[in-house]
Amino acid sequence: MSNSSKDLDHLIELMAKLPGLGPRSARRAVLHMVKKRALLMTPLADVLAEVAVTVRECLNCGNIGTADTCDICQNPKRENGEICVVEEVSDLWAMERSHMFKGRYHVLGGTLSALDAIGPDELRIPRLLRRVRDENVTEVILALNATIDGQTTAHYIADQLGDVRVSTLAQGVPIGGELDYLDDGTITAALRARKTL
Amino acid sequence: MSNSSKDLDHLIELMAKLPGLGPRSARRAVLHMVKKRALLMTPLADVLAEVAVTVRECLNCGNIGTADTCDICQNPKRENGEICVVEEVSDLWAMERSHMFKGRYHVLGGTLSALDAIGPDELRIPRLLRRVRDENVTEVILALNATIDGQTTAHYIADQLGDVRVSTLAQGVPIGGELDYLDDGTITAALRARKTL
Repeated sequence: MSNSSKDLDHLIELMAKLPGLGPRSARRAVLHMVKKRALLMTPLADVLAEVAVTVRECLNCGNIGTADTCDICQNPKRENGEICVVEEVSDLWAMERSHMFKGRYHVLGGTLSALDAIGPDELRIPRLLRRVRDENVTEVILALNATIDGQTTAHYIADQLGDVRVSTLAQGVPIGGELDYLDDGTITAALRARKTL
Repeated sequence: MSNSSKDLDHLIELMAKLPGLGPRSARRAVLHMVKKRALLMTPLADVLAEVAVTVRECLNCGNIGTADTCDICQNPKRENGEICVVEEVSDLWAMERSHMFKGRYHVLGGTLSALDAIGPDELRIPRLLRRVRDENVTEVILALNATIDGQTTAHYIADQLGDVRVSTLAQGVPIGGELDYLDDGTITAALRARKTL
């Protein structure tokens, strides 16, 4: 590819496999790293090697971290009886960025899907039911994506949970959203859930 | 950022410094690597650590590689008397991808710029003049960008070179280019350099 060296070519090849990067941006990224070797390339190599060895899924909630139990599950301040159920770790991170939720999480690892033969046992649903039984859970917040599969999964879980309080995220117009760019379903949902001022 | 672990946060932070990646795509890239640990994350960590230690500029031409002299300068088959002068290593790689040029390169490391106080000594221009004198150079191809700074630099170098044959890349309509989307300068250049069929 570049005739520069086998290692460089291999590095570019691997970088190009990252989502959002193609061959062209991988080459740019590698040249940028070479220019900023001390500030970027060496620290990145170090932390990547460290994470590649230490990263693991939390045995309790499915979040990723560098210990058997993630920082959130280890933090006693996060034990407030609320469990927020999300599909993926990226959703957990999105929730955390809002700094609004103070409880713990449960990462399903996907959604139920008849088409892909993903049933409850392929996800972390049995583990969630056990947590709701064993931990003092007062409310389960289903923060699944507003897709068909996400909502199917939410209904399935709500059915299984029994007595505990179950809630979902509100649906409506996103902050800063312009009506003209919203789909009909969102506008319908926002109108149905309208609030008296 | 993610409350997942300090190492993971640090990794995301560093990845977000790569050109073309922001915080959001850095998080996606890291989650992707975690999912493909054996196939992507570990090999990437290995080759990145290797390259961070071994990468260096070729003492002859300024290309990057993992030895004091790059693969192209080491290859006797590439010694055909032609030197292609480019601004950056990325330009060298672009030339190599065309598989058209069989000679050697010289990477200037930028262009002359009065505004940024970049004179000939800040670039690899003295080194180029020495190479033209010492190696059996028959032609210098100035493959600099078609920008003001690039063309100023090309003229300066052509003036310095004296006897040797100096050429530049042809200007015209790119392959697959549509006239409607081309700027006036390109169309003017293409018209001036028109060829009789």
